[in-house]
Amino acid sequence: MENFTSRENCATIGKIPLPDRAVLERIIPDPSRLIFENIDPKYLSDKLGRLQGAAQAVAFPLSTAEVSALLGYAHEYGISVTPRGAGTNLVGSTVPVRGGIILDMSRMNRVLELDEDTMTVTVEPGILLQDLQAFVEDRGLFYPPDPGEKASTLGGNISTNAGGMRAVKYGVTRDYVRGLEIVMADGTVLTVGGKNVKDATGLSLKNLIVGAEGTLAVVTKCILRLIPKPEASVSVLVPYPDLKTGIGSVLSILRANANPTAVEFMERKVVALGERFLDIQYPRPDAGSYILLTFDGRKAEVEANVERVRSLALAQGALEYTILSDPRQAADIWKVRGALVNAVEAVSEQEPVDIVVPISKTEEYIRYINDLERDSGMQMVAFGHAGDGNVHLCVVRGDRTSEEWHTQLRANMEKAYARAYQLGGVTSGEHGVGLSKRHYFLRETAPANVAVMNRIKDALDPKHILNDQKSYIITGEK
Amino acid sequence: MENFTSRENCATIGKIPLPDRAVLERIIPDPSRLIFENIDPKYLSDKLGRLQGAAQAVAFPLSTAEVSALLGYAHEYGISVTPRGAGTNLVGSTVPVRGGIILDMSRMNRVLELDEDTMTVTVEPGILLQDLQAFVEDRGLFYPPDPGEKASTLGGNISTNAGGMRAVKYGVTRDYVRGLEIVMADGTVLTVGGKNVKDATGLSLKNLIVGAEGTLAVVTKCILRLIPKPEASVSVLVPYPDLKTGIGSVLSILRANANPTAVEFMERKVVALGERFLDIQYPRPDAGSYILLTFDGRKAEVEANVERVRSLALAQGALEYTILSDPRQAADIWKVRGALVNAVEAVSEQEPVDIVVPISKTEEYIRYINDLERDSGMQMVAFGHAGDGNVHLCVVRGDRTSEEWHTQLRANMEKAYARAYQLGGVTSGEHGVGLSKRHYFLRETAPANVAVMNRIKDALDPKHILNDQKSYIITGEK
Repeated sequence: MENFTSRENCATIGKIPLPDRAVLERIIPDPSRLIFENIDPKYLSDKLGRLQGAAQAVAFPLSTAEVSALLGYAHEYGISVTPRGAGTNLVGSTVPVRGGIILDMSRMNRVLELDEDTMTVTVEPGILLQDLQAFVEDRGLFYPPDPGEKASTLGGNISTNAGGMRAVKYGVTRDYVRGLEIVMADGTVLTVGGKNVKDATGLSLKNLIVGAEGTLAVVTKCILRLIPKPEASVSVLVPYPDLKTGIGSVLSILRANANPTAVEFMERKVVALGERFLDIQYPRPDAGSYILLTFDGRKAEVEANVERVRSLALAQGALEYTILSDPRQAADIWKVRGALVNAVEAVSEQEPVDIVVPISKTEEYIRYINDLERDSGMQMVAFGHAGDGNVHLCVVRGDRTSEEWHTQLRANMEKAYARAYQLGGVTSGEHGVGLSKRHYFLRETAPANVAVMNRIKDALDPKHILNDQKSYIITGEK
Repeated sequence: MENFTSRENCATIGKIPLPDRAVLERIIPDPSRLIFENIDPKYLSDKLGRLQGAAQAVAFPLSTAEVSALLGYAHEYGISVTPRGAGTNLVGSTVPVRGGIILDMSRMNRVLELDEDTMTVTVEPGILLQDLQAFVEDRGLFYPPDPGEKASTLGGNISTNAGGMRAVKYGVTRDYVRGLEIVMADGTVLTVGGKNVKDATGLSLKNLIVGAEGTLAVVTKCILRLIPKPEASVSVLVPYPDLKTGIGSVLSILRANANPTAVEFMERKVVALGERFLDIQYPRPDAGSYILLTFDGRKAEVEANVERVRSLALAQGALEYTILSDPRQAADIWKVRGALVNAVEAVSEQEPVDIVVPISKTEEYIRYINDLERDSGMQMVAFGHAGDGNVHLCVVRGDRTSEEWHTQLRANMEKAYARAYQLGGVTSGEHGVGLSKRHYFLRETAPANVAVMNRIKDALDPKHILNDQKSYIITGEK
């Protein structure tokens, strides 16, 4: 795994079993849903495209039965399977490291049922978040999880327990997964959870699968909880003279009992990149940082909460308190927030970091990163979900050679992750561990925790066919 | 297990290893925290006291180190360990079925830290729910999960993923567990989760332990999420002419976007028992059923929601809409709701049932139970958490002989559980499976699900020392 850098290809290794074309053609009896030759590199990587794996086949199943047959076959022969949705992940989760089959779930993308009585929607895992959101909002309902990448699939969201902008008020993907249909590594199909609100029967397999990064099972159906669509939603942009003042006021805002939906922070320098990237201007370019808030709910309640935070923010040093009442302006401001990674990426290769620390440590952690940036000379722009301590950094390569970049990045990131763990933080809040963060995750996590995770992996996927060597998985002589 | 009826004692079986007194005295070096002789039967049972197990020792640890040493010893020799908190469970979860050691966690009951910045409280698992609630509410904070039994421990609440009255708005115990310290069956101590809001790193061991009924690990520390204490809370009692009309209006109430905290339903006949039991009168004794609602939050918001539901309930056939503005009256009304199981139990032995069905099926399910009651001649009083489809039944023994009772109960309950599963329901919403519901759970659950749960059990507790033969656990030649 350590060799998975840049655009080096991962050739399959001698002993690893390969899938048989004829068998796959029997399982997926439609040539347009199988690729064996000239596999597009996009199927061998993640969104960043820097880590490249290798595979012998890409399969596009259309049914649970096909997924089950394919996994049953792969399990029998020990053939590696790498599940993927839209491939928008940033941590190499969809890079096939031991060859085998790419299981592309993107064509299983239907809405199967909208049940307004139980306020649930049942979808296939390949549906895109943006399509699901539009579908339910058209019907007066609301799916709260809102990761930045709207072209991600629900299956991917579930596999990383995606968080996003609205997690402060509404929680993360896990909180909206009522039930799943899953196919285990050996092809067994299970339904875990369902439409019930409560469930105290045996082990929560559903909760084990959410966030498991496709290492234990493949999701083939998702029963998701919906809520009524909020009546009103208002965003507010709050510029501060510097990052410290901005981050410093977040805790008071959270404690004010004003129930914000989103509390995002951004350094001015990354906003400037976003402005140039999209040709959109933020107010107060003299600011050092911004806090971007959203409030939603009943109209009167939203207005009261917006005003409650105004006095608080101004008392804590905010330069202004700009209510984005023009929907176009609000959309523009959020568009810049959503495009920050792309804006940085347009200027230079960058390493996305998704560290989480306890909310009370966010300020201290960002200060540490600022010091590390100064001392190392490596640019690190900070933004992220201030309301839940989820710090996104873009660590910028600049004009470093490949070797300089990898060596220095590793050294600096080892410091950054070590510090996060000292403060009680973890490697990832929503991107997952995948391949790219594995080194740091394994370095910082208690070996006993990793061992327990591996005992579960060994029990449920004894041949390690599913997404092997990702995240927590230690493969010995399998 | 089938023999665990009435007050028959479970003698330990020949081959089962027994704990050594001298070893336990070294691990717990305080005679007042060990019992070897004349073990009080309360330690060998649950709250109902009808299932009795046997054990050679009761240990009261005071530290994680003691729990770890004890489990390490038990694991080495394959000695059974039955963890317990306050023993308030209703399903035999704390009945030792293979002898060994009772691990009573009730003396590890301290508040370790209140962290107002991250809005978390860290407690030992033996703290009682009522003590935790009082502690945080005194400080302007709020722990939302609110199972009926306030003298239960937090460790017990976590092990059954307890739900309770406020689950409609606030969710269940799982939603408030940020982190745990746990001791695995072999004595290994792990910290899973922490104070972070988000976590996308590897398998969620925390979520596997919540609801596992003490079968995988013993919880020794709990980091719980708190919220600001709601400014106002108002309850409303709504009498209906019959149960059908009452239950029928629940879905409309839930869809009205009025965000109720609690939506309880009660048949008049069970309320009458509660009234007699506590000498408290409900209004409108001519009603056939009641819906009891609570709304909380900001004062204006609460008032608006109360009014929003009023017109709706009256339009749907409510006889009245009584706002319980006198706090003493509200407390009395809730006191009766809280005492229903005890009120029935005071009249006759009864079997508590904790079935959940999808909310949209509640009415149909209660109709089925009413028919079953009529056809079988066995009294079944219904009440419960209408807002989440969690139906509590008290099935009443009356003057049946022990044999009649067990035979008829089994036959009727097999029908009741089968019907619940047909409707998409499950055995338990919040009590857990334990011993008493195991027959029905194993009968109705897909064997593949049970098999996966057992593979996890075998991987994490290979000698099955923890709470063996409870819930999903199938023990072969271990």
